[in-house]
Amino acid sequence: MQVQVISSVNEASTAKFHHKTAIIIDVLRATSTIVTAIASGALCVVPAETVMEARALQRAGDLLGGERFCRKIAGFDLGNSPEEYTEQVVAGKRIILTTTNGTRAIHKSMRADHVLTASLLNAEACARAAVELRRDVVILCAGSHDEFAIEDGLCAGFVLEKLHILCPVAVEMDDFGSAMLGLYRNRSTQIRETMMNGITGRKLLKLGLRKDIEACSSIDIYQDVPRLNGDQLTRN
Amino acid sequence: MQVQVISSVNEASTAKFHHKTAIIIDVLRATSTIVTAIASGALCVVPAETVMEARALQRAGDLLGGERFCRKIAGFDLGNSPEEYTEQVVAGKRIILTTTNGTRAIHKSMRADHVLTASLLNAEACARAAVELRRDVVILCAGSHDEFAIEDGLCAGFVLEKLHILCPVAVEMDDFGSAMLGLYRNRSTQIRETMMNGITGRKLLKLGLRKDIEACSSIDIYQDVPRLNGDQLTRN
Repeated sequence: MQVQVISSVNEASTAKFHHKTAIIIDVLRATSTIVTAIASGALCVVPAETVMEARALQRAGDLLGGERFCRKIAGFDLGNSPEEYTEQVVAGKRIILTTTNGTRAIHKSMRADHVLTASLLNAEACARAAVELRRDVVILCAGSHDEFAIEDGLCAGFVLEKLHILCPVAVEMDDFGSAMLGLYRNRSTQIRETMMNGITGRKLLKLGLRKDIEACSSIDIYQDVPRLNGDQLTRN
Repeated sequence: MQVQVISSVNEASTAKFHHKTAIIIDVLRATSTIVTAIASGALCVVPAETVMEARALQRAGDLLGGERFCRKIAGFDLGNSPEEYTEQVVAGKRIILTTTNGTRAIHKSMRADHVLTASLLNAEACARAAVELRRDVVILCAGSHDEFAIEDGLCAGFVLEKLHILCPVAVEMDDFGSAMLGLYRNRSTQIRETMMNGITGRKLLKLGLRKDIEACSSIDIYQDVPRLNGDQLTRN
């Protein structure tokens, strides 16, 4: 299995996804939120690129979620904090979600044969799903404002570690993938600390969103792997 | 001291270098060759972007060096192997050098206040020189064909490790720098093996250039830090 890792949305050309399984990572916070929403029983999450598009997609009973500048969008039901997406709030609901980087990353990868979303909360389950799909893999680290974000790289390294364990054939990585695996192996016992010291982590701390970092740094608490079906992310 | 690390030439906009000290890294092989040439007594190395430009710059007594597709250029005196740049060959000579990635990286950084060239052969000396220059630093990993190359990332992490030790003020890194430091700390005892498993390393091995990888993987054997003066890289 060939695995390529892309450092930010900025680096992702759609051609890179042809005939591949794409794994989208935006640890702080879009893919952590998506995984939490699906694990909490949401019917599906529809990624929207813009606020206007999100509003246009909303039908009766849908919830609007997302952020701009790390804050909930005016008039939306939910922000981008995983902890808002509880079973009581989201079970059985269709959620329209727009975030600065994560939903852009999902849209970029739509030409892939399969699109999975990973976070630290479901990394092993995601690696297992990718192995079962028997395609080469492209891991897209969403990053922040077109720059690499360390928490996404850490998660990519974690997924690679799991692919090595789970994949029955050899996993061959590009150099950036090897670097992220090395990073993960160096920091695997200091995941939360590394996240808090990163650019996004520091920004969230300043905004009083420490709880979000904590919620996004739990390891493998979910077995759900939201995947794209048409324009919706669903459990299967 | 703020330190930013750029993953490949492709990512380097000239604006990022303003008022900074730039450290250019192309471990396999341009900056290793430049450091070796200067340590062997070459008068200077003039980076040229194209073969035609290199030929036009040549004056009587100059040596032409460089590669295309990892091979010596037809009619040139020298290729891009550090081991060719011995004292007997280069002492007192002006060398015009054109390589696929390294010399492009140097040209990209010319707006910096200072431009230093680093490799594993002189990383500590380069970190010391950067501290003495008292500017914020941009480390540019040249990469290969617009992609990140792991040996450049390893060297960037090594320079960052040395900056942490040598710099009297706190060293603040961007997320990519933190990732490269983590990578270096994970792989510091397997530098040569990591280089041989990388994309460039595997390509050089196929071409029978194992000796070049070995020559480029020695740690801190030189105290020389070639730096740009006008259009020439010199010892001081």
